[in-house]
Amino acid sequence: MKLQATNDFVFIVRSEAENEVGGLLLPDSAKKKTNNGKILSVGDSVQDKKIKGGVNKIAVFHEGVGFSIDEDGNELLVLRGGEIIGIK
Amino acid sequence: MKLQATNDFVFIVRSEAENEVGGLLLPDSAKKKTNNGKILSVGDSVQDKKIKGGVNKIAVFHEGVGFSIDEDGNELLVLRGGEIIGIK
Amino acid sequence: MKLQATNDFVFIVRSEAENEVGGLLLPDSAKKKTNNGKILSVGDSVQDKKIKGGVNKIAVFHEGVGFSIDEDGNELLVLRGGEIIGIK
Amino acid sequence: MKLQATNDFVFIVRSEAENEVGGLLLPDSAKKKTNNGKILSVGDSVQDKKIKGGVNKIAVFHEGVGFSIDEDGNELLVLRGGEIIGIK
Amino acid sequence: MKLQATNDFVFIVRSEAENEVGGLLLPDSAKKKTNNGKILSVGDSVQDKKIKGGVNKIAVFHEGVGFSIDEDGNELLVLRGGEIIGIK
Amino acid sequence: MKLQATNDFVFIVRSEAENEVGGLLLPDSAKKKTNNGKILSVGDSVQDKKIKGGVNKIAVFHEGVGFSIDEDGNELLVLRGGEIIGIK
Amino acid sequence: MKLQATNDFVFIVRSEAENEVGGLLLPDSAKKKTNNGKILSVGDSVQDKKIKGGVNKIAVFHEGVGFSIDEDGNELLVLRGGEIIGIK
Repeated sequence: MKLQATNDFVFIVRSEAENEVGGLLLPDSAKKKTNNGKILSVGDSVQDKKIKGGVNKIAVFHEGVGFSIDEDGNELLVLRGGEIIGIK
Repeated sequence: MKLQATNDFVFIVRSEAENEVGGLLLPDSAKKKTNNGKILSVGDSVQDKKIKGGVNKIAVFHEGVGFSIDEDGNELLVLRGGEIIGIK
Repeated sequence: MKLQATNDFVFIVRSEAENEVGGLLLPDSAKKKTNNGKILSVGDSVQDKKIKGGVNKIAVFHEGVGFSIDEDGNELLVLRGGEIIGIK
Repeated sequence: MKLQATNDFVFIVRSEAENEVGGLLLPDSAKKKTNNGKILSVGDSVQDKKIKGGVNKIAVFHEGVGFSIDEDGNELLVLRGGEIIGIK
Repeated sequence: MKLQATNDFVFIVRSEAENEVGGLLLPDSAKKKTNNGKILSVGDSVQDKKIKGGVNKIAVFHEGVGFSIDEDGNELLVLRGGEIIGIK
Repeated sequence: MKLQATNDFVFIVRSEAENEVGGLLLPDSAKKKTNNGKILSVGDSVQDKKIKGGVNKIAVFHEGVGFSIDEDGNELLVLRGGEIIGIK
Repeated sequence: MKLQATNDFVFIVRSEAENEVGGLLLPDSAKKKTNNGKILSVGDSVQDKKIKGGVNKIAVFHEGVGFSIDEDGNELLVLRGGEIIGIK
């Protein structure tokens, strides 16, 4: 991806939600949003070192934070660095 | 353009919206505002280095942020540097 | 003018509004306020260098910001330095 | 006056309002408050150098800011240093 | 646990509430939340040294602060470092 | 007095209000609170040098600021250092 | 006590309220909360030196500030360092 995060923004690809429960396929509308995803790009004013060096790692956050943008047909989740709870 | 941005302001020329959908021409009122545009001038108190060195690059932002001014008959979008999400 | 700006205040003489449209003279009440004017004095706590060195240059701002004072019979527009969008 | 300003306070003696208009004497209640006055004392945490060195000079401010105290039978106007727009 | 706290977040395993009172077993719904728990991970921007070096120690906090996330099937309590009252 | 002010607190003994007007004795309920008093103790985080060195001097303030505590049977007025307008 | 205060928290054992007035014993519900108590532990981010070095001294504060926690069966009053007015 050519787009690079600025300020304290972090770009994330949210992990896929489970698409079946107890063997039953779930329609998209019934899937729960996950609270984590892969870090794609980190803005220069994010201070936390684990996040700064965290591209391709998994960030954990509240399901409800951030907002989505469409970039070249892909959905990116945009968070503030301070909204990331942990990393693995 | 002679006008230079001050403080943390950034001047942007918003990218043109698509003017047809599925082969049908759209009237101006039906075009969706784009969320990006070319950077023309960056105020000295913008801290982010990618934005500082980003004149002529494309900034991505929320469609709804900023305000427009008329400068020599051209419409300029005026943002705060901190409102720019990414650059490419 | 003897009065010097203090703090982060900037004194401006607002540019004259157009007084005719399509060859028709406009009454004062119909003139639109301009969004720019000449800088007369800049307070010491204004940080932006372009504004600090901008006496006699043209500042651009929102039409609606600031307030006016009467100084020796002349109307001065008083802005905060941070309210100036650009300079030329 | 023995009382010295502390913090960012500035003591001012407000200039007298005009007491006649067009040759007619005005009653006190009809006089308009002036927006300026002589600086008597400046607190140590006022940063602006023009104000710091401005004792006995005239400060310009909004008519409505500050509050009055009675000191030895004289009315003092008390402003914050940041409320002073200019000096002459 | 692979997940590491970022920013000023602290991960805690809340201590078990008493499950009997006066010899009577309590149902889960009747157990009172405890105000303490074992520290698992501390984000780099937590300043307090006792907390920074407090992994595996017991943190005391308000019962009501923080929020829970599910991590690998375990419930983690997530606090801000500044919400921890004391440590032992 | 053994009690010493902490933080930015200042302890003051408020000056006595006038107890007669025009030769008539005033009941306590009719006395106006004074806006000044003697400084007894100054907390270490008060920055203003005149106040820091102002024990036994008279501080001037708004009549309405601060609160009273009873210390060994004496009423102390407790102000924040920043609420003191001037000193003499 | 093993529990140590963190951040800017201060642990205090509130002084006992008078339990008789004019020779009459007061029931607990009629006792007035005292505004002082002995300092047990001081968090590292409390700045005031008198408070930092004030363990076992008496802190004075508003009756109403802070909150109580139960620690090993004892009631501790938890204040922010900035809520302590004075020390003796």
